[in-house]
Amino acid sequence: MSAQSEHAGSSTLSLDALVNLLEKIFLRHGTSPEVARVLAENCACAERDGAHSHGVFRMPGYVSTLKSGWVSGRAVPVVEDVASGFVRVDAANGFAQPALAAARPLLVAKARSAGIAVLAIRNSHHFAALWPDVEPFAYEGLVALSVVNSMTCVVPHGADRPLFGTNPIAFAAPRADGEPIVFDLATSAIAHGDVQIAARKGELLPPGMGVDSLGQPTRDPKAILEGGALLPFGGHKGSALSMMVELLAAALTGGNFSFEFDWSNHPGAKTPWTGQLLIVIDPSKAAGQDFAQRSQELVRQMHGVGLRRLPGDRRHRERARSAEGITLDEQTLAQLQALAQ
Amino acid sequence: MSAQSEHAGSSTLSLDALVNLLEKIFLRHGTSPEVARVLAENCACAERDGAHSHGVFRMPGYVSTLKSGWVSGRAVPVVEDVASGFVRVDAANGFAQPALAAARPLLVAKARSAGIAVLAIRNSHHFAALWPDVEPFAYEGLVALSVVNSMTCVVPHGADRPLFGTNPIAFAAPRADGEPIVFDLATSAIAHGDVQIAARKGELLPPGMGVDSLGQPTRDPKAILEGGALLPFGGHKGSALSMMVELLAAALTGGNFSFEFDWSNHPGAKTPWTGQLLIVIDPSKAAGQDFAQRSQELVRQMHGVGLRRLPGDRRHRERARSAEGITLDEQTLAQLQALAQ
Repeated sequence: MSAQSEHAGSSTLSLDALVNLLEKIFLRHGTSPEVARVLAENCACAERDGAHSHGVFRMPGYVSTLKSGWVSGRAVPVVEDVASGFVRVDAANGFAQPALAAARPLLVAKARSAGIAVLAIRNSHHFAALWPDVEPFAYEGLVALSVVNSMTCVVPHGADRPLFGTNPIAFAAPRADGEPIVFDLATSAIAHGDVQIAARKGELLPPGMGVDSLGQPTRDPKAILEGGALLPFGGHKGSALSMMVELLAAALTGGNFSFEFDWSNHPGAKTPWTGQLLIVIDPSKAAGQDFAQRSQELVRQMHGVGLRRLPGDRRHRERARSAEGITLDEQTLAQLQALAQ
Repeated sequence: MSAQSEHAGSSTLSLDALVNLLEKIFLRHGTSPEVARVLAENCACAERDGAHSHGVFRMPGYVSTLKSGWVSGRAVPVVEDVASGFVRVDAANGFAQPALAAARPLLVAKARSAGIAVLAIRNSHHFAALWPDVEPFAYEGLVALSVVNSMTCVVPHGADRPLFGTNPIAFAAPRADGEPIVFDLATSAIAHGDVQIAARKGELLPPGMGVDSLGQPTRDPKAILEGGALLPFGGHKGSALSMMVELLAAALTGGNFSFEFDWSNHPGAKTPWTGQLLIVIDPSKAAGQDFAQRSQELVRQMHGVGLRRLPGDRRHRERARSAEGITLDEQTLAQLQALAQ
């Protein structure tokens, strides 16, 4: 492994070295080589881009889930060509990312031919950030939207108890003179991974993020994690969007709603067993000026009204900085190396 | 006209009578019979459903816009069959609703055949609620999503000055044992029509809705309307969604962004000259149980966690109540009758 010590307490790895380390961990815990490769790249790229709540922080959760027998690490996704714009995948109780990878060529071909295409993934586990699923389409000149439901931890606006998952929405669009426009937003007021990180660090959350086990507002991340719940972002509007994600990612795929799976017989299981929907549009079918020129113009105007940071800018800055290597603290690296043994 | 006085100061009309009155107003101001019918039904149905900010309250705006020559009331939309899942319409500087009506049969046929289809409307004016555009698809068993951009009045999160429109997102899905699940949410913290209504009533807004002409937070709706601006809902997340609406409704249709049209030579013009996107999905292509049964199950569970009111419930209640007639105050009715002369 090409890890090199940089300064006391941390090490810097190349992206390839980190992917290889994570791949070893997945293989060590019984996944197929295909699954190991896809998940290792996904997780290492999140770490590279500074998305720490979906980076190597997730590895112990992947491992405990695989150990619990909750998810199939050797699942072979079954791709079904349903109609000229509709692809279904049965992820076969495996991870969503290998299912997307298996269906992707057909999805892209259909989007380019029909102008729009939908990919309905079911029977799948999604434990990663959502933007890595949409960003690559934008690099190919396509517009992509994805939603995935997760596990009951969000109280619908106006309700008493949790029902929805954090249910993120991710979007990517090409841009002429720069990186694609990409965002990935949880429809909860805060992402679950960020609550876990705050709990680990012993930090308080901003107000309005969640409730404790009695349904009372709290800023304590541990109170949220231990029997409490999150709130949707933006009140009734975020709640409506979260409901939409349940309908699109579960009802429209044949997957579970966030409240429908029972992992009580699988201690250590962390991955929600639900569904995912992707919609991909070919903007070359649109009238008028080239889409990427138009999105570039929108960005120019956004900067013109004083916007300094676009969604995704921080990721691209971190990505550029990580070209020289990805820095992990010694403890984290040692933990990963132990998981690979 | 079948108006009948109910009690002092108000009159009750049947839906048909209200549609006929509004139709007369549109015809009187130079629209074609097709355009008059579509817009009159749209506006009367919003009034019937208690969506007052998009009901007859909008008629003076329609009239002043038609008088100004800004919009073409006799436009004939040009429908283009671009690909197996992609329909374009040039609304020819007319209203968006007649363009949708003209393209609708082709859009539905494509959605049923391809599994998903997109309608890209450009060169169009949208001055109404968005849910009437999606709800009918749900009654036909289809899932529909629509976005429309409007006119610069929302400050992007982190920016100094307004750029985006109120840029609503509307969604509709069928449900087995009840009315479709439908929502229509402005990505601004408040809809522009509601600010206008608050200003007319002399009421203060809740905090966090907008800024005055100096960019300072204000609860005064007049300060927002006179040189001020709205904020997005939900901070950076609502702002990202508003940006997405600009990209989908304008860049992907060939329409104007919310900041690109100049109506300064058309005093009285009120309608944004932009674009609209609709995505329609046929859930019968999905795996597993019937979609409408699944959405019914989601609703059942939402009620189970204590949710009393679903998005759209109020509209359906108002609609049921309006079966006996739509009540207008005498002043409003007189104003409408005067516009029809």
